[in-house]
Formats: sequence, structure tokens, C-alpha cells
Amino acid sequence: MIRHPAFAPGSVWLAGAGPGDPALLTLAALHAIETADVILHDALVPAEILALAPAATRLVPAGKRAGGIHTPQLSINEDLIALARQDLRVLRLKGGDPFVFGRGGEECLALAAASIPFRVIPGISAGIGAASAAHMPITHRGVARSVVFATGEAGPAGGEVDFAALGRAADTLVLYMARQNIGRIAAALIAGGRSPTDPLAFLLDATTPRERVVHTTIGAAAAIAATLPPAATLVIVGPVAGIGAMIAPHRPEAEPSIRSAQG
Amino acid sequence: MIRHPAFAPGSVWLAGAGPGDPALLTLAALHAIETADVILHDALVPAEILALAPAATRLVPAGKRAGGIHTPQLSINEDLIALARQDLRVLRLKGGDPFVFGRGGEECLALAAASIPFRVIPGISAGIGAASAAHMPITHRGVARSVVFATGEAGPAGGEVDFAALGRAADTLVLYMARQNIGRIAAALIAGGRSPTDPLAFLLDATTPRERVVHTTIGAAAAIAATLPPAATLVIVGPVAGIGAMIAPHRPEAEPSIRSAQG
Repeated sequence: MIRHPAFAPGSVWLAGAGPGDPALLTLAALHAIETADVILHDALVPAEILALAPAATRLVPAGKRAGGIHTPQLSINEDLIALARQDLRVLRLKGGDPFVFGRGGEECLALAAASIPFRVIPGISAGIGAASAAHMPITHRGVARSVVFATGEAGPAGGEVDFAALGRAADTLVLYMARQNIGRIAAALIAGGRSPTDPLAFLLDATTPRERVVHTTIGAAAAIAATLPPAATLVIVGPVAGIGAMIAPHRPEAEPSIRSAQG
Repeated sequence: MIRHPAFAPGSVWLAGAGPGDPALLTLAALHAIETADVILHDALVPAEILALAPAATRLVPAGKRAGGIHTPQLSINEDLIALARQDLRVLRLKGGDPFVFGRGGEECLALAAASIPFRVIPGISAGIGAASAAHMPITHRGVARSVVFATGEAGPAGGEVDFAALGRAADTLVLYMARQNIGRIAAALIAGGRSPTDPLAFLLDATTPRERVVHTTIGAAAAIAATLPPAATLVIVGPVAGIGAMIAPHRPEAEPSIRSAQG
């Protein structure tokens, strides 16, 4: 038997919905979806997952691109607090994990400041889900003893991750929102000492029926990126991307297809 | 409705069981546990999770410390192949995620070499689960744009992660199996430029009823580690550990208690 804590009216639960496949929801997240009075969800949560909520549940798009509009983070924080003060069970449902590029920390701080009780339910982060689906062991004995998750987007003040240093220090890199800047990131990785021929893979719409894996190299990444269709994209850099390519031909028949694009 | 692929006899599924709390199993992992003929599980999978298997399912301890003995990896690989060749549905169930310090890559390579069909089901890694439970947003806007997962154990050939470089390059560090070597790791982080007064937290038995969070600093970590009881331990380093401490007093009543040990 699985026991779940009581979802008290007037409280907020922040839950990760995982990488896309509804089967990768946790039991705790499913329980939250089935129990909440209102669900504020971002655009990364697929319709199949929202469909698991009872018909009476209020669904509110909130966050990056949700419902075609961008809801500013401060306004989401205020909505969570206002709904909790209406004595509702409020679920904040996010793609992936709330604390891995999910801005869950900001929501926790706002809730704590307003003395609203809350709970955080972790989810399978997009990078972890994509690695599993593409058979890339992001740590691998003798090959990768460290893995870094970083964002390829420039920060609000123009600050950016030091990819040269990261590429030197960590064995595997899992990059979120990196497709647009991949040319600049690849150049930094090479400047930091990575070889242009090192494996790099694009994982598109991972764990969904549209999933696709494109194998290439750091040096060829920018040229390949320009040829890819629009999709939620993760980038994995390091020898483990090559291991995924080795294993790929042995995947069961029903698995998503692999396209190889060696640069 | 959640759809699961058919678990074909003669195939192996590698699944992550998550960080400890059975509610943090994915729906896919629960389905695998309910469907498998035989489950090879490591010692990190709690009894409450194994109890979810039907009574007829064969449970085989395998891996680090499982059943009080250490099963060598090569022998596990051979067992998986042999059981699949008996036309069984074979589940390899691991704590956390199979590809985050779980040696799942080695098992995939062995299965691929033996032409055994397999599938990988990701799980909530111990570090992600612990961060959620302790309210530490391992990425946080303006504070942490990168997070590295690394092992504190020396490698088979004595090779070790370069913690000075990692500490310089990544904002947040989530360290597995780092408790024993924390003095050496802390010294390397400080040598690499981290301040001895930067926050560091020990997360003990996270997501279980025995959970405990101990807040300290990089400089005081070794002294504090010596006072901790035996437990599965994660270490989180960086400003986000301090955010967890700020949020902690606002956790719901029923949440695990926090002990502060500022050094």
C-alpha cells in the first residue's frame, strides 16, 4: 500500500510532471492531480497528463508559453497565494522537476513568506528522462564520474554559464534550452579543451511518441541544429552520448527510431 | 488512461525505484514491479517497494550490499542474460535512477551484446529527491544556473573527480557517496576558490521517515560528518543549501525536523 499525506485545503503542492510520458509521473504526482481543487500548470505539461484530473478540477495555464501567453513569475506566485487563501487545494504542476530549471524555489520562497503551507514533489527531469530513452548512461564507470545540468539561455542580467570551465570540469553535460546558442556553447567547450570530434546528441521531444535522437559531434553541432524541426530539445555532450549510439541498434522494435548525423 | 508497453517474456527492464519513498515510484516502475516474473533488486530498494510485487514474483537481491553480500557487476550481467534466456520477464530494480551512479549503462551494454531486448525506465535520483524534501532548489534564478552530480568515491583505478575544478565551474554540487571523503573534498573545494563559510548540507535518509537535514558550512563539514549517525547520505553544496535553511521553518507541521549545526 502506498500512503499519501493529506492534501490540506489552503495548502500548495508543487509537483513535477516528468519529461512528457504520463507513465513517468510519480504516484505522488498522480495522487496530487486526482486530489487538487485547482491546478496551475505550465506549457510543458502535456494534455494527456492534465486529462487525469477529475472533470470538476479547475485547470489554469500559468508560466512560460502556457496558453500562448507568458505569465510573469511574480503573478504566478500571487495567484498561488490567493488561491490557497480561498482554502483550496492548490497544485502547481510543472514539466520535469520543480527545482531543475523549474523556478520552484522562487515559488517556495513566496509561499514561505506568506506563511502558506506547501510541499514539493520531485519529478523526472527532462534531461534524466531523455537520457534513459536514448540509452545514454549519463554516469558510466570509467567514463563519466560527474554530470552537470546547465542552461544554455543567457541570464536576466546577461550572465551566462562558463561552458569552457564546465566542459573541463564535468565528464557529461546535459544542456537545457541550449539549442539556439549551440554554436557559441560548442565553441566555448572546444576553447575549454573538448575535442571537436567528441560525441554530442540532440534529444528531441524525448519520452513522447515524436521522440528523436540525433547523434553528431561538438564541432558539427551548430550545422546540425539548423536542420532540426521545432521540438523540445535537450543536448547531451560527452563519451556517454557515443555509448547511446552503440546500444541503439539493439533497442526493441517498438522503440523510437534513431537518425545518425555524423558531422 | 496510462498506457504501458507490453513486458515481453525474454526481455529485461531496468527501472529506477526512486529515492526511498514508495510514492516517488513512477507509474511505469510500479507497472514493471507488478508484471515482472523475477526482480533483481539492489540494497537501496526498500522493503515497502518490494512488497508491491505479487506474491509469486521471484525476488533476487543483487548488487552493492544486497542481502549482506556484494554481487560483482559481471555476475549480475550474466544473471540478467540467463534469466531472460529462460523466457522470463526480468526486472532489474535499482535505487534512484539507473543511469545516475547506478551502473545501468554496463548492464545495457551487456544486454545489447547478448541481443536481449531491454528498456530503461528512469527514476527520481536520490539527489533530486533529497533536494525536494529539504526544499533546496538545486537551480535557482540568479543564484544557480548549473548543478553537478558527482561521486565522492575514488574510482577503480584510484582516479578521482577534480573537485577544485568542479567547485569553480558549477554553482551547485550534489555529491553521492561523499560522506567518508568529505574532509578531502571540502579542502579541494576551498582550494578551488569556494569560501569555507559557504553553505553545505548533509541530507540523511531523504524521503524516508528517518529523514534528517543537517546544515553546516564547507569549512565545518568534516567535523560535523564525524557526528552523524549511519544513514544513506547526500551532500549539497552551494547557496541553494542556504535557501533550504531559510524555507525550512515554514514547512508543514508533519514534515521531518531540521537540525541546524552551523560551524
